[in-house]
Amino acid sequence: MTSVEVWRNPRVLAWAYLSKVVQGPCAPLTKLVEEVGPEEAARAVRERDLSEYLGERTVARAHVNTAAQDIELVAQMGGRLVTPDDDEWPAWRMLAFDGLGHARTDGPPLALWVVGSRSLADLTDRAVSVVGTRAASGYGEHVTGEIAGDLAVDGWTIISGAAFGIDGAAHRAALGVGGRTVAVLACGVDRAYPAGHARLLRQISQNGAVVSEYAPGISPAKHRFLARNRLVAALSDGLVVVEAGWRSGARNTATWGRRMGRPVMAVPGPVTSVSSTGCNRMIREGEARLVARAVDVVEEAGPVGLGACDEEVVRETDSLEGNALLVYEALPARGSQSVPGLSEESGVPIGTVRAVLAQLELDAFAVPTEEGWARSR
Amino acid sequence: MTSVEVWRNPRVLAWAYLSKVVQGPCAPLTKLVEEVGPEEAARAVRERDLSEYLGERTVARAHVNTAAQDIELVAQMGGRLVTPDDDEWPAWRMLAFDGLGHARTDGPPLALWVVGSRSLADLTDRAVSVVGTRAASGYGEHVTGEIAGDLAVDGWTIISGAAFGIDGAAHRAALGVGGRTVAVLACGVDRAYPAGHARLLRQISQNGAVVSEYAPGISPAKHRFLARNRLVAALSDGLVVVEAGWRSGARNTATWGRRMGRPVMAVPGPVTSVSSTGCNRMIREGEARLVARAVDVVEEAGPVGLGACDEEVVRETDSLEGNALLVYEALPARGSQSVPGLSEESGVPIGTVRAVLAQLELDAFAVPTEEGWARSR
Repeated sequence: MTSVEVWRNPRVLAWAYLSKVVQGPCAPLTKLVEEVGPEEAARAVRERDLSEYLGERTVARAHVNTAAQDIELVAQMGGRLVTPDDDEWPAWRMLAFDGLGHARTDGPPLALWVVGSRSLADLTDRAVSVVGTRAASGYGEHVTGEIAGDLAVDGWTIISGAAFGIDGAAHRAALGVGGRTVAVLACGVDRAYPAGHARLLRQISQNGAVVSEYAPGISPAKHRFLARNRLVAALSDGLVVVEAGWRSGARNTATWGRRMGRPVMAVPGPVTSVSSTGCNRMIREGEARLVARAVDVVEEAGPVGLGACDEEVVRETDSLEGNALLVYEALPARGSQSVPGLSEESGVPIGTVRAVLAQLELDAFAVPTEEGWARSR
Repeated sequence: MTSVEVWRNPRVLAWAYLSKVVQGPCAPLTKLVEEVGPEEAARAVRERDLSEYLGERTVARAHVNTAAQDIELVAQMGGRLVTPDDDEWPAWRMLAFDGLGHARTDGPPLALWVVGSRSLADLTDRAVSVVGTRAASGYGEHVTGEIAGDLAVDGWTIISGAAFGIDGAAHRAALGVGGRTVAVLACGVDRAYPAGHARLLRQISQNGAVVSEYAPGISPAKHRFLARNRLVAALSDGLVVVEAGWRSGARNTATWGRRMGRPVMAVPGPVTSVSSTGCNRMIREGEARLVARAVDVVEEAGPVGLGACDEEVVRETDSLEGNALLVYEALPARGSQSVPGLSEESGVPIGTVRAVLAQLELDAFAVPTEEGWARSR
């Protein structure tokens, strides 16, 4: 389709409308769209023909319809709206779950606004996220440059959040070696955020992609950074934190990564450096594995990222809920975990974990091993 | 006894004679002395009334008897020969073993030459070894000072090897806060090695102890450094490597520590610093846990070091040999290990490990746990 055809296509317009209305992750809407399609879902939103939760979640912006303008604006920037209809829709190897009554909306995005000419699926086929503090030290920027540069030379796409400090150094390192890089934003792709990175963002879109689940015109906000961090983790085969404080966006990204079974890595630094506090402590607490060089990263991120079977995993495990899903989630992506470990990870009591594991084994989701329990392959 | 009485005491003279003849660790001689006493063992050595191995091991120096002079020399320095006869003999929480036919002479020393007025048992009751490279960076020396100083203030004895670099910084940090410190030498206590640390060694003996299993007059040599490293590990409740290369004496000490079930810790550093290569890699490979501050060290080393029951453990496990001992040794001091993990650690095939574990369980040396196998308490 030409861009004119796209923004007159009623199905595409429905995706764009829904993206603008919902503004960020909303698993129930994603589910509704899967069931009835985007056009019927858009009708239901417009006409307030929804469940109570979805009704509340969409009421404030249901009357807004800037779909055609949004599509045109992004098209003028060299971009498009990528949806599950498209071949380039990434294979989301993460599980939406809503355990223990928390509304954890960490499912795949509804759709993604993408500026850049390459296929998003290709870009994220072999990808590592490199993230860290805005207040990077010279050491942090140097090591980011080394690791991200070497990974990019090796054909890995570098994903980051376009922030100042480590993020910017990671994107620049990939660009510097003619590699590929993806910036995931917490605002519309029409907004250059941070403004000081406007030129960098243009370069990124020319050599990779600038991506957001937020429609054009949407401003960055705290909850959007957190949701954006989940996409940084979800689009990658592994995650490297170079420098970070203990309570930091980078550690939030790492937490998402761990929850999604991604290898989480951290670069150590001087124990006297505030910028390395988070990384050193993540390594100490077993939240991240120490990496010093790109080759260490490849060792961790290399073996996973096999897109083909992952859609399957997502579909199968859709049937899991409650404690079963929590315990399944706690099983490591590779290797095994003990029953006490699973209890600690999932927050489910040991006795219940045992009962749930028996059922998971019957349903072929889990297998006992000599070290504990593992996911079935 | 006054010092004159000591060096006329035939039993003490026998210990001193044996120490000079054997020069370093020799489990069969230690065992012979345990069985027949030092005087009878000394007679057997003098008269060549020995097993073939012990005969060969002692023939070169059996004619040397400088026992009285050695005792007098060390007494003049304010020292003494400490033996299993003495109340201050440390509770050696390490196991002598000789598995797979290797003559691994990592048992307790026969006796120790000690300069310093404090009881060796008291000094090593709550002790942490702090070791590292001679080629320390400013960062390494600074962090050593912080960690060793804080530990010494907290009442921990700092044990190290009196070398330049990290070792020296560790001793100095303890002395600087009026704390206690022990230097373990790879030569006689009458030799100041390195010569540049002669004054430091005097200060250490005044505020703690300078210790060696080598009799006066014996020079440092490579194999003595390795044997010395085993004592640095054995005398401590935990071991901290601050800066070290990958193939280094400090890592050798850490290996001894791990083999003896001591918590092994390492301080991370910049991945760009050669001096931190060994520490970062030990953390990455799971050989050491990352520590950044004294409080991290106490968390690791604190709960162990309860001398009372350890003699018991040594005695009980004396009955183990061959694969049984190798597998028992591979069981972690705390927590559990899986059967494949035990196989990898012990070098014993998986099938044999299973058979051995069954016997160890019957003999109350090991218990199955949810995560694998653990030592019986």
